[in-house]
Amino acid sequence: MTQKTIETVETPAVLIDEGVARRNITRYQAYCDEHDLALRPHIKTHKLPHFAKLQMEAGAVGITCQKMSEAEAMADGGLEDILITYNILGAAKRERLRLLAERVPRLAVTVDNAVTVRGLSETFAASGKPLPVLIECNTGADRCGVATPQDALALARMVSDSPGLMLRGLMTYPPVGGGAAVAAFMGAAKALLEDAGLACDVISSGGSPDMWTASAEAGVTEYRIGTYIYNDRSLVTRGVCTWDDCALSVLTTVVSTPASGRAIVDAGSKTLTSDLFSLTGHGHVLGHDDVSVARLSEEHGTLEWDGGDRFAIGERIRIVPNHVCVVSNMVDQVWLIGADGGLAPYAVAARGGIT
Amino acid sequence: MTQKTIETVETPAVLIDEGVARRNITRYQAYCDEHDLALRPHIKTHKLPHFAKLQMEAGAVGITCQKMSEAEAMADGGLEDILITYNILGAAKRERLRLLAERVPRLAVTVDNAVTVRGLSETFAASGKPLPVLIECNTGADRCGVATPQDALALARMVSDSPGLMLRGLMTYPPVGGGAAVAAFMGAAKALLEDAGLACDVISSGGSPDMWTASAEAGVTEYRIGTYIYNDRSLVTRGVCTWDDCALSVLTTVVSTPASGRAIVDAGSKTLTSDLFSLTGHGHVLGHDDVSVARLSEEHGTLEWDGGDRFAIGERIRIVPNHVCVVSNMVDQVWLIGADGGLAPYAVAARGGIT
Repeated sequence: MTQKTIETVETPAVLIDEGVARRNITRYQAYCDEHDLALRPHIKTHKLPHFAKLQMEAGAVGITCQKMSEAEAMADGGLEDILITYNILGAAKRERLRLLAERVPRLAVTVDNAVTVRGLSETFAASGKPLPVLIECNTGADRCGVATPQDALALARMVSDSPGLMLRGLMTYPPVGGGAAVAAFMGAAKALLEDAGLACDVISSGGSPDMWTASAEAGVTEYRIGTYIYNDRSLVTRGVCTWDDCALSVLTTVVSTPASGRAIVDAGSKTLTSDLFSLTGHGHVLGHDDVSVARLSEEHGTLEWDGGDRFAIGERIRIVPNHVCVVSNMVDQVWLIGADGGLAPYAVAARGGIT
Repeated sequence: MTQKTIETVETPAVLIDEGVARRNITRYQAYCDEHDLALRPHIKTHKLPHFAKLQMEAGAVGITCQKMSEAEAMADGGLEDILITYNILGAAKRERLRLLAERVPRLAVTVDNAVTVRGLSETFAASGKPLPVLIECNTGADRCGVATPQDALALARMVSDSPGLMLRGLMTYPPVGGGAAVAAFMGAAKALLEDAGLACDVISSGGSPDMWTASAEAGVTEYRIGTYIYNDRSLVTRGVCTWDDCALSVLTTVVSTPASGRAIVDAGSKTLTSDLFSLTGHGHVLGHDDVSVARLSEEHGTLEWDGGDRFAIGERIRIVPNHVCVVSNMVDQVWLIGADGGLAPYAVAARGGIT
């Protein structure tokens, strides 16, 4: 079987420029090194042990996962330091966590409520290896997280008193631009914990939009980001990176040119997804700044521009999606673009398991 | 291994009430039978040969697929009459189509341009079995399709003159409420084809929102719909069905209750998807009409209501998604709810292959 190229691979196809991804890894690791921040990349973006290992080799302290199946796939791939930033609930998931802890040298989780703490303690009390736990704090994103530093102290006390658990510190997923709120909340909570004689070795924050101002979040010891390895239209639009920094694109074929100013491609919402992230349109057509990905149906994308002929039927174009993390999740396989332009298929190890 | 139930299966999980799905199949088949319409269900909604076969047994004339991988999965499952409503382009896909035609007794495609026609003719000219082709017409949805009945005639003539191809008729995917436009366009095009001595045995229209007025689309011989087998929030909102007719729901666990009027569940955009379909919110919480699925991140859903406590951490709730077709596409496995309440895992055969 001859090697596939951008001209011969079937479309739609998710392409990854490995050189660009490596450059993104190196560049942000250098920023973290310079500012004395531990970097803990979130693998939800790529779901590939291959890239998680490159992130570790570059100097990351460990990786972040968002669910059990991601963590299990990373453990299968040999990753040894995993933080699952999620309340792990229910007997079945706790048992998976216990089994995972037996084979991952450093495995930790976050909690924001007493029910989760009680369950984890029940599972890990008999274990010879206590489970490290961070308290999730709400610094304004209004998703999970305890509401106040006092609440953080109360839950930290409970963790500290719970057999099988080991308090490690605090964690937050802040809103964009929330650096000052993070510093205020975490500073107050850390002071309360220390006054109470409780451990607070780690203060973990994150988020790609604010990645270049992470060092301004006073007190934060660790930063978690995912998207930075591939980048996407949302981050280019925010000024966080340029199109040249985008490692992932969706290769698609023009299948119809039914009217002036309109063309249809074979990538729809089942490839690009419907994530808008407050943007207009569904992606950026590389090399055609004035063309919008105006609408998606499941297997069709509708391109629109100011009229006239532009694309030929059968022509291949590349679209940078609004949000890369959800695109990796759509496909069983991505294609890594080699230095010679050849494409190597790569299975997306952590896709498919939704639990 | 004991059988899973709604209380024990890990979440998030996609549940299908097979009794409701069967009732939906039967009810719409009865409508089509009464109105002398051939029904050709679109399997993009369920991607399961199991349900495609039930649709055929109920009286469907065949099935509709949107891409090669769906059609191949259905052929593997024993389906024998498949229409792929897509311009099949490129040497690799045409070769897959040729191989598929060898094992599917009745396989047809649609075209809306000369490039596609030339390619298909090249591939099928040497075959002993000509490929049936429908001309795709734009009746106002402004996706694919020739623009006028005259254009339909010109392309039909080309198909008719192309070795290896056999003209079957016309096809459209109309806009919602487009029945009158369909009747006008298709009536005019059919008259032109018949005047020219060209075959127009099939006039195929479709769309779930207008399913109960399909019979008003004068001249249409065949109707294609997908969503009706499961139904979803978009169709309930349009008045096409009720919550009791919704066969698919996402079972999810409350993982955090961080504030009055807010709870977080373990189903996010990687399960429910971001499809809005012009709705506000991301799904309907069964039994809690006043609770909105206000925001999704990848693995979290944020429920909001008018304040107060409502859900307990660990509680399981069911969400009917905005759009079911894209939810089936997110998971490798769904769970069929049996009459005894037990859950049977079922692999989603046609998921994963994006080409």
